[in-house]
Amino acid sequence: MNKGRLEAFSDGVLAIVITIMVLELKVPDGAEFAALLPLLPILGGYALSFVYVAIYWNNHHHLLSLASRITPGVMWANMHFLFWLTLTPFVTEWMGRQSFQSAPIMAYGGIFFMSAVAYKILQQQISVTTIHPETFKKAFQRDVKGILSPVLYVAAIVIALFAPVVSYGLYALVALMWIIPDRRLVAVFEANHEEKTHSH
Amino acid sequence: MNKGRLEAFSDGVLAIVITIMVLELKVPDGAEFAALLPLLPILGGYALSFVYVAIYWNNHHHLLSLASRITPGVMWANMHFLFWLTLTPFVTEWMGRQSFQSAPIMAYGGIFFMSAVAYKILQQQISVTTIHPETFKKAFQRDVKGILSPVLYVAAIVIALFAPVVSYGLYALVALMWIIPDRRLVAVFEANHEEKTHSH
Amino acid sequence: MNKGRLEAFSDGVLAIVITIMVLELKVPDGAEFAALLPLLPILGGYALSFVYVAIYWNNHHHLLSLASRITPGVMWANMHFLFWLTLTPFVTEWMGRQSFQSAPIMAYGGIFFMSAVAYKILQQQISVTTIHPETFKKAFQRDVKGILSPVLYVAAIVIALFAPVVSYGLYALVALMWIIPDRRLVAVFEANHEEKTHSH
Amino acid sequence: MNKGRLEAFSDGVLAIVITIMVLELKVPDGAEFAALLPLLPILGGYALSFVYVAIYWNNHHHLLSLASRITPGVMWANMHFLFWLTLTPFVTEWMGRQSFQSAPIMAYGGIFFMSAVAYKILQQQISVTTIHPETFKKAFQRDVKGILSPVLYVAAIVIALFAPVVSYGLYALVALMWIIPDRRLVAVFEANHEEKTHSH
Repeated sequence: MNKGRLEAFSDGVLAIVITIMVLELKVPDGAEFAALLPLLPILGGYALSFVYVAIYWNNHHHLLSLASRITPGVMWANMHFLFWLTLTPFVTEWMGRQSFQSAPIMAYGGIFFMSAVAYKILQQQISVTTIHPETFKKAFQRDVKGILSPVLYVAAIVIALFAPVVSYGLYALVALMWIIPDRRLVAVFEANHEEKTHSH
Repeated sequence: MNKGRLEAFSDGVLAIVITIMVLELKVPDGAEFAALLPLLPILGGYALSFVYVAIYWNNHHHLLSLASRITPGVMWANMHFLFWLTLTPFVTEWMGRQSFQSAPIMAYGGIFFMSAVAYKILQQQISVTTIHPETFKKAFQRDVKGILSPVLYVAAIVIALFAPVVSYGLYALVALMWIIPDRRLVAVFEANHEEKTHSH
Repeated sequence: MNKGRLEAFSDGVLAIVITIMVLELKVPDGAEFAALLPLLPILGGYALSFVYVAIYWNNHHHLLSLASRITPGVMWANMHFLFWLTLTPFVTEWMGRQSFQSAPIMAYGGIFFMSAVAYKILQQQISVTTIHPETFKKAFQRDVKGILSPVLYVAAIVIALFAPVVSYGLYALVALMWIIPDRRLVAVFEANHEEKTHSH
Repeated sequence: MNKGRLEAFSDGVLAIVITIMVLELKVPDGAEFAALLPLLPILGGYALSFVYVAIYWNNHHHLLSLASRITPGVMWANMHFLFWLTLTPFVTEWMGRQSFQSAPIMAYGGIFFMSAVAYKILQQQISVTTIHPETFKKAFQRDVKGILSPVLYVAAIVIALFAPVVSYGLYALVALMWIIPDRRLVAVFEANHEEKTHSH
């Protein structure tokens, strides 16, 4: 299987997921700015989910650059990963509409927990078949963020029972942790990229 | 006609089909987990349809890798195939909303029966023009799954008159049959791929 | 400007247009096949529009294969063409929902008339800059379909005042005229393709 | 990071934004042309937003052709830019539905002001890493349009408090200013393109 087409399909799904979320923002009936107020929590959730999908797109891109062959295992691990991400618009809208109550906040964290697990499975499937095992090892041996994220999601889900707003803050924190570029990782990927360019 | 653009267009349509199905999951009014219960059959249908479209995307990819020229026949057979798949979100939602009653379950099977027929026509159109007739023959001479699937769809449609849940199980069985990678087919495609790589 | 990116963007828009039309098919409340009956005219309109967009995608592909440079004129002519096509889902739904009454049938023809005009403008913009003027001339010198189509649309729009069903038949006829491959055109494009391949 | 995949993702998002706006045009209940009258302001807003997104797609394409490396800064500046553009369908629908009253017209300008700021940030991020600093400098040293646009947006937002229709006219004027091709810029990009082609 051709890697380019798997990437193109994944890009398509992620581009649609990130864009159709805006359909949740139902246009208000009033013509005053006050009519937008009830939409603010939905907009806040939208912004957070946008950042999450952007982070996943970015990580997915780096991960697939290390994939050498698209085995059936990689293909299905990728589809499984996309499945959980397509549920993002649903939980984002539920969370926003119900003004950050316990159940929706927990469901939101649940979907991102499942996405993180699915991403780990994809990572494992690719690690088996890569022809760059050295780069792969260097990139993921101390996968602090990859391990910390699901732990923080579970923490946020439990906390949501008592203080949903704290959970939302935790979700934002995880996003922030991923946005800050990882100097070590960037170095590993650039070294790999240069190596490939030189060997051409 | 350029094969790359036909693939890109098909990927686009399949990515949209697989993603807009999630718009069927209307966010509930309540803020409790109980409010999600009525959505479970829709979610179940969504997951099954997601797997079906993923399987078709995968198979479509392999099939087109054997196409040498995009004749008008291949172009229109491909469009005909995409047409039936775009009806997937509609029958998925109907089936989910009507909690697996006879008519929607039959319509669901009907769409996948037509997709299977359309896929067979596409296969036939490509077989006529391929410059890899050997690989094509090896890949599809004992096309057990390709023949069994429409037969099982018809069986499921008839059974739906009496026991719709059994039909749903049959649809899931067909999906499972396709997910399990076909060692023989994988071997044929890898041999073909290596042959192409070596001849470069 | 890079031709590939213009094609990718156009493919994206056309793939979305062809797929979101299915969102018009609102799932019925009933669980019987009879509940689908009121949807039949909408489904009929959907099938026709699907064929129309598929034809335009096909023609657009051939036309752009002759474009040498993407000038601002070609870029904006292409956007203008896409603009009219994005209105297809709207007129398709209106026509289907109002069971083929005069005004919606006329609006439907109007959008395809404007698309045909926009396509002609794009063709003209590309003809000015192509480095294959010979192929271009051969392909479009006797552009019977390209001239007949807008004439038939206008006829259908006038006829819709008295007999909307006849107009619908005319629209289907135009589509049929385009589906039947044009031996002369196919020959011209294949000759051009072979020439390009040989000169590599 | 691969530039091609960033462009493909951006193209996908922009293609979806430009196409889902048409979902705002809710099909009227009547079958007469008069039933379309209330939709005219929405259609007007749709046409204007279509042109805006088309302009941004065009400019984005030229800008990225000068990007040498996709640093994390470029990646996130691009996502930030896409975020504001995904809100276009929302403000377009609000403006159209409320028949050009003050608040929606101001919100519309606000989104395009933020898009323009985000575009400037992206431009700055790319300028830092480009290996074509000469071309970049030539292309953007007298960035009259890029500076005038946000100024005109702010003016339109203030004017909307008193005369919203004038603001709408100003938005249309900015769009017109961008459609007219910039001879100087086109020359710079063509020179750059030829230089690249010759050095191959």
